[in-house]
Order: sequence, then C-alpha cells, then structure tokens
Amino acid sequence: MKNLIEIPQKKELIYKGRYLEYHLDHVTLPNGQIATREYLHHPGAIAAVPLLDTGEVIMIKQFRYPTGSVILEIPAGKLEAGEEPLTAVRRELIEEIGYEPQKVTHLISCWTTPGFTDEIIHLYLASELKPCQGELDPDEFLEVVTFNKADLLKLLSTPGLIDGKTALALALVQLRDLW
Amino acid sequence: MKNLIEIPQKKELIYKGRYLEYHLDHVTLPNGQIATREYLHHPGAIAAVPLLDTGEVIMIKQFRYPTGSVILEIPAGKLEAGEEPLTAVRRELIEEIGYEPQKVTHLISCWTTPGFTDEIIHLYLASELKPCQGELDPDEFLEVVTFNKADLLKLLSTPGLIDGKTALALALVQLRDLW
Repeated sequence: MKNLIEIPQKKELIYKGRYLEYHLDHVTLPNGQIATREYLHHPGAIAAVPLLDTGEVIMIKQFRYPTGSVILEIPAGKLEAGEEPLTAVRRELIEEIGYEPQKVTHLISCWTTPGFTDEIIHLYLASELKPCQGELDPDEFLEVVTFNKADLLKLLSTPGLIDGKTALALALVQLRDLW
Repeated sequence: MKNLIEIPQKKELIYKGRYLEYHLDHVTLPNGQIATREYLHHPGAIAAVPLLDTGEVIMIKQFRYPTGSVILEIPAGKLEAGEEPLTAVRRELIEEIGYEPQKVTHLISCWTTPGFTDEIIHLYLASELKPCQGELDPDEFLEVVTFNKADLLKLLSTPGLIDGKTALALALVQLRDLW
C-alpha cells in the first residue's frame, strides 16, 4: 500500500465558535513537501428515521440558515459533551417530535464530509414510538410533518435538493426492507 | 405553514480560507429574538461512481486529514469557480483515476450538512469509461482500488465508519438497479 499519510507539524486554532472550531494545520505530505489543511472540528451528530406503527415516518421542516431555505429532514442533532449516540437519539426525538422510541436500530455511521470536517453522524431507525411531551430549545423552530412510504421514496428520486443524511437513512431503510 | 424564517441582521466574515469561508451572522428568529448562526461557505462539490463495463467500480483511498485516517471513497472534488458539475465530474475522473466517462447519470443532489454549511454535492453514476492519462494535483496522494458489487454492498452494512457521499451514491445505484 502506498504511503498516503500527512503528518501535522504546526496546529493553529483560527476560531472557536459556539460548537464548531476552525483549524488550520501545517502538514508534511507523503512526498516531504509542506501544505496547509483547513478543517472544522465538530462534536458529532445523530439522526433517526422515526417510524410509526402505521408505517408512516415523522419528518421535520426547518429553516437551515446556511442554505437560506426550509429543508425537510429526519430529526437530528449534535452530540452533547460525553453523550452516547443512543441517548442523543432518544433526547432529540422527544424534543423535536414528541415521541420516545422503544426500539432503535443502527443503520450506518459516516464521515459527513471528510475533506473539511471530522464530523461523524450515526444514523438509526427509531420505532415502537410512544407519544410524550416534547420541548424545543428556545432558538429552534420547526414544523412536524408525516409522510407515507411512497412519498418518501419519491423524495429519493427528486431532481431538486434534498438533505444528505435524510436521503441516506431512507435509502438504507428501503434497501434493508425495514418498513 | 408556520413561520420558520430567520432574517440576517449583521454579517461577519470570521475567516477566509483557501476555499472555505467561516461566517458568523446575527439573525432575527421567528419569535423576534436575536441569535447567532455560524456556518461555512463552500463552493459545492461532485462525486461519481465510476462503473467499468465489467461491473466493477473504481474507488480511491485517500488520507483525509480532518479524520486522521485513510478513507475509501468514490472519486470526488470541489467545483472550481463557475464550473458546471458535469465538467467537474469529467475532470475529477480523469485526474484521480485516469478514466474519461462517456455516459454520466445524475443520482441525486444534496445538502451535505445544512446545519453548518451551504455545501451542495451532486452525485452521479459514470459509465462507458475510457482509459486516459490522469494527473493529480501536486498535494493530492491517493491509491486507486477496484471493487466488485458484492464487496460494495458489504460496505453499506459495515458497522465501521464509511464516507457519507460514497454510501449514498452506492445505495442509490443499488436501489435503482443501475449496475
């Protein structure tokens, strides 16, 4: 196997944000040359497809400021410090849609965009949902919408823009015939 | 439909990197409160599943500095200024694997991580591949590897970490029975 490794020589923290950190590192390339690498440090995230006993899926619509638009997504959220992914799934589903899952099935864990961030997202199917009282963070605003399987599959072949984690999670639920 | 829109009031450019820009905006929330939103501006990207006439797929292994590891991915790259996605697909496949596609089929276009970046990635299936002379950027190092369909499908059910765009593109090729 070829040597592909880049070795850090000097690390700079350019900006420490509310939960993201922007880094600029100087690295030695496999050929001995020096280059810079810019990246975001991210705490990691989870997302889950909440599947009702009726076969319908609960989705959310949310204004995503960086995109300038309202996006249809499965419930998702960042991991809090030291939080286990499964704890975060339960917390986010209660907060965002007011359901507590009795069963959580792992779908996949991914690097979201390994070119510029270390973010890992863990995707799940959440089922046997029990309604409960949710409460959103004070700066979160969203609309809860329910979709049936046929409409969700149509989303996967839309020519328009779709949320990446949502597309991947729905594709895996379909491939594994989990609904 | 609920009002979900956040209105920018003040925009700060925190850092302008080589191709990423880190922004911090102050916004008015739907309830009138003020909050801050941090995000990365990204030029957009493409990725493609290069399918040989034999049914095998050409992948690359690359050290992705933010993740600290060598990752298996389909060929991908950022859009250059004003570049059409299809032009970028052709360019990246020539550069990274030394093949020129005669046929390119759109799979999906996604927001990669709409919580903190405006990055859009366009995913394709690239087929009818013609070998040609590739040339990598001077700071790019990668290993080209060929996988058969069975091994690619196994990747989708690995408990380990996988690249998100690669997982989504392979899942869609399988769902649409394109190989």
